[in-house]
Amino acid sequence: MNYTEVLEQIQHELRPIVGRGQVANYIPELAKVLPHQFGMAVVGIDGRVSSVGDAHVPFSIQSISKLFTLVMALQLEGDRVWDRVGREPSGTPFNSLIQLEAEAGKPRNPFINPGALVCTDILCTRYAVPENAVVEFLRPLCGNQDVHYNRAVAASERRTSHRNAAMAHLMKAFGNLNNPVDDVLDAYCRHCAIEMNCVELARAVTFLAHGGTHPDGRGDVLTTSLAKRLNALMLTCGTYDAAGDFAFRVGLPAKSGVGGGIVAVMPGECGICVWSPALEPSGNSLAGSLALERFTTLTGRSIF
Amino acid sequence: MNYTEVLEQIQHELRPIVGRGQVANYIPELAKVLPHQFGMAVVGIDGRVSSVGDAHVPFSIQSISKLFTLVMALQLEGDRVWDRVGREPSGTPFNSLIQLEAEAGKPRNPFINPGALVCTDILCTRYAVPENAVVEFLRPLCGNQDVHYNRAVAASERRTSHRNAAMAHLMKAFGNLNNPVDDVLDAYCRHCAIEMNCVELARAVTFLAHGGTHPDGRGDVLTTSLAKRLNALMLTCGTYDAAGDFAFRVGLPAKSGVGGGIVAVMPGECGICVWSPALEPSGNSLAGSLALERFTTLTGRSIF
Amino acid sequence: MNYTEVLEQIQHELRPIVGRGQVANYIPELAKVLPHQFGMAVVGIDGRVSSVGDAHVPFSIQSISKLFTLVMALQLEGDRVWDRVGREPSGTPFNSLIQLEAEAGKPRNPFINPGALVCTDILCTRYAVPENAVVEFLRPLCGNQDVHYNRAVAASERRTSHRNAAMAHLMKAFGNLNNPVDDVLDAYCRHCAIEMNCVELARAVTFLAHGGTHPDGRGDVLTTSLAKRLNALMLTCGTYDAAGDFAFRVGLPAKSGVGGGIVAVMPGECGICVWSPALEPSGNSLAGSLALERFTTLTGRSIF
Amino acid sequence: MNYTEVLEQIQHELRPIVGRGQVANYIPELAKVLPHQFGMAVVGIDGRVSSVGDAHVPFSIQSISKLFTLVMALQLEGDRVWDRVGREPSGTPFNSLIQLEAEAGKPRNPFINPGALVCTDILCTRYAVPENAVVEFLRPLCGNQDVHYNRAVAASERRTSHRNAAMAHLMKAFGNLNNPVDDVLDAYCRHCAIEMNCVELARAVTFLAHGGTHPDGRGDVLTTSLAKRLNALMLTCGTYDAAGDFAFRVGLPAKSGVGGGIVAVMPGECGICVWSPALEPSGNSLAGSLALERFTTLTGRSIF
Repeated sequence: MNYTEVLEQIQHELRPIVGRGQVANYIPELAKVLPHQFGMAVVGIDGRVSSVGDAHVPFSIQSISKLFTLVMALQLEGDRVWDRVGREPSGTPFNSLIQLEAEAGKPRNPFINPGALVCTDILCTRYAVPENAVVEFLRPLCGNQDVHYNRAVAASERRTSHRNAAMAHLMKAFGNLNNPVDDVLDAYCRHCAIEMNCVELARAVTFLAHGGTHPDGRGDVLTTSLAKRLNALMLTCGTYDAAGDFAFRVGLPAKSGVGGGIVAVMPGECGICVWSPALEPSGNSLAGSLALERFTTLTGRSIF
Repeated sequence: MNYTEVLEQIQHELRPIVGRGQVANYIPELAKVLPHQFGMAVVGIDGRVSSVGDAHVPFSIQSISKLFTLVMALQLEGDRVWDRVGREPSGTPFNSLIQLEAEAGKPRNPFINPGALVCTDILCTRYAVPENAVVEFLRPLCGNQDVHYNRAVAASERRTSHRNAAMAHLMKAFGNLNNPVDDVLDAYCRHCAIEMNCVELARAVTFLAHGGTHPDGRGDVLTTSLAKRLNALMLTCGTYDAAGDFAFRVGLPAKSGVGGGIVAVMPGECGICVWSPALEPSGNSLAGSLALERFTTLTGRSIF
Repeated sequence: MNYTEVLEQIQHELRPIVGRGQVANYIPELAKVLPHQFGMAVVGIDGRVSSVGDAHVPFSIQSISKLFTLVMALQLEGDRVWDRVGREPSGTPFNSLIQLEAEAGKPRNPFINPGALVCTDILCTRYAVPENAVVEFLRPLCGNQDVHYNRAVAASERRTSHRNAAMAHLMKAFGNLNNPVDDVLDAYCRHCAIEMNCVELARAVTFLAHGGTHPDGRGDVLTTSLAKRLNALMLTCGTYDAAGDFAFRVGLPAKSGVGGGIVAVMPGECGICVWSPALEPSGNSLAGSLALERFTTLTGRSIF
Repeated sequence: MNYTEVLEQIQHELRPIVGRGQVANYIPELAKVLPHQFGMAVVGIDGRVSSVGDAHVPFSIQSISKLFTLVMALQLEGDRVWDRVGREPSGTPFNSLIQLEAEAGKPRNPFINPGALVCTDILCTRYAVPENAVVEFLRPLCGNQDVHYNRAVAASERRTSHRNAAMAHLMKAFGNLNNPVDDVLDAYCRHCAIEMNCVELARAVTFLAHGGTHPDGRGDVLTTSLAKRLNALMLTCGTYDAAGDFAFRVGLPAKSGVGGGIVAVMPGECGICVWSPALEPSGNSLAGSLALERFTTLTGRSIF
């Protein structure tokens, strides 16, 4: 299916609202991004690409990196990952410590910050330079050998990451972090600062629409069963504490980041990525959420 | 597709574990149900029926009724329902008052008890005898004109419903309940005590697999868009605080009840109902959850 | 010691602020009370009375009744009371359900609403008309045989007591309420609606300053040890969630009510009562709290 | 008054229970302390000393240091301290993060860990080596020029202080910590590791019984008003989440530490210190709590 017309229609419809919302400002470097940008791309499991707008402009993937570090952690540890992190929606804002303390240091799911820190901790145990391992995992997946992380953004986030440090220390107190807190935070801030564009990210998630098959066709990223299960996890937990509303409105597995990107998966068909930097109060891209809602409405397709 | 072979295979595989778990004992009448029962039915959107085991034995639908009272509330009030009840997973056990107080009397979603009480309150405003209205809504939907509620079960639950009374009074204190607390609780306990069998329930949810179309083919229960959205809500919130894990393992929209029944939806294909009275600690049927997990594994079908 | 001069000085100093704050408005009948009233009385353990302002105007004692129902419950049940209610400050607003649920239906202390409901429940078990038993306990204690409760206020509070009903039902669900919820709430709203004036209330608490001795000199209300312990409980828990601040500023055991009254105890010397209907956000009388702070400052006396 | 006989009686009575409970084991160095030790001392405001048992054996003062760092913070900042830390009981275990997050990084009171970290932060701003400033403050107060902190205990606690680090980072995220987290934690662990004996500690708190007057008679530690207010704060918040029960049973302002020490104040008369290393589950010395309860019972003296 060729999605170009649909994407153009969405871009046209959303023009008046692109830029509404608030660019993430808790990371000083990210606060400099111009809000009036919008890009969207669809990559089919056959590799065909449709895109529109700023789909080739790189942006900070931020929490979308949690999807990839989870995949890497599952490749390394398999189901042992679930001994350290749950699979339930969090029901509270994405950076809350309350649930983490009430549940003895075991994060609710791998898509909230403490859960992602556990995945990064697993990578720290295995790799000397874990952020480089993430970059090297992503390059063939997205088809761009120049993917890298932005050192200024990583440093900016690292300087203001006291809340992440609080969560990491609390997990350390509960025995759910194996590496030094500073090492985990360094790696975490760096893989969050990886920069990719919509086309690259849409391609990088096609394996989730394709039973786990690597987009280069040579082998699997994950088993079919696990790829489906990741989709389920994205649907219930992928968009912070708005996951229920997002599933209700959009109806696709998705993972968002405060850089304004959202990746989504249409099982059996394609990977999708939309980007627009201004956010809703829930932390998801305002125009991006609407674009995905229009996408499922206009195509008449969703998983439901 | 004919599902008879798959159902027989599931019944065979699960035989050793049927009866494991704990029959709900907080409602004295329900505690009398024999645990070693198992039935499962699939009804296609074309009306074709496959079933196995105790699929024709009526049981107490309990919280599955919350799905139907939500549909009725949406028919009456449309999107105004969402002013009074949210669409997010609860993240805490199904009968918790904590979130209700922290969020000013607005329940997280319509599938936890306080959210369902709001839907019942809407029915109380419209109907003189709301439990009869629910029964009359269900009879054509399930194809059995004799569906009714069990008065002994309703009375037994009513006598022990202090926690529901606490939630109803708290919502009343916040102005989110329009009818007298006792009236709402009476109606609620009665529609929870409706008895149906697996074949009837599987048929009653086919409209969710069929774009909202009534199974008798004459008109719609809901619009296509709203039917899809209910599926999303069931996926994120339908199985108490195990919704994330259930989506991960099963991958179908579903709603469970402490009577041991679970209904599920395969969009575009069929409604499913499984019943086995012994429960997991999360309140979902133990054998029923496994049966649905095997169903998606054996058929290779899920929404993901 | 003659306190008349001190009381007159306090009245003079506070004149500009009497009436500031907010008269309790969640009980419609109480909302009618005029805010610009102020009275204060001191009754020595020798019976000598000093008073100023509206010290002879009766007002609704409201939560001050919790002190007396606790004394009656202790007379009936002794230390068994502490099996059902704790002795720790609550740390959250006075009507919160959260702690009650988290701690399995055992209220933190007898001075928050659910704790007082447990004491009322004890009285309901022993007395056919518990509110009359409270009135009859108070008459000799305060020296006025005409003390009674205001039926209009009781009915007004009863109609709006959904939050108390929620707490009572929750405790019932946990097995910590023996009588029907409606009976306990009826008795509770009535003993809260008892009307007394400052002189009567100051006299009614002299036994706490006098080793438990009844002010009529014939026998003891409580043992010396228990009287001291009640003072400790009033200091740590008597003024809602402002108890720490109140102890810090005033330094006397005290119990307040939303009718604007506060009773306090100077061990070995006197009972004190101040009344002014306008409240601080914490639910304590604004002018009353300041009056007691001035009292300990001007006399140079406190328990510390 | 000469308290020697009372202390001997208490020592005699408690002999069978000294050693019951659990020596603090989360700090490895403290876990080595022998449990069967017991000492108690009373120092009058006239300087007269009574003591019994191991009253001259130095022990780790731990959280008792929070009393002294608060005094120093008040000397430096006055009432501005209360902009950063509250005066209310916490109502939850002493190291909980939940309240800290719910209340935007402002600790409930200066005697729980996060509140004490704020006081240490104030000292870090003023002093180059804050732990030495605390030691130098204590030497004249307790009359021993050799008081110092134990470097092995400080290092042992520092290595395991992940929960304190979590709280410090959370406060930093909320803007309620001015110095680097590591600096504050270093100073905090060191002043907690100060070693003193019962006689020294009893003398060091006599100023709280004596209107703020320094025990050497030359000047004031605090104003009379502030000394009284600190006593109020100790009564409502000084013994972790058992403060209500402690006030109820003992009836004296007190501050305890997990090293097994408890200091208490009898206003107008004396400072008291008891030490026995084995703790109740609440974190207070088991034999120490009982000794203070017997002390007020045998002398018939308490603040109530």
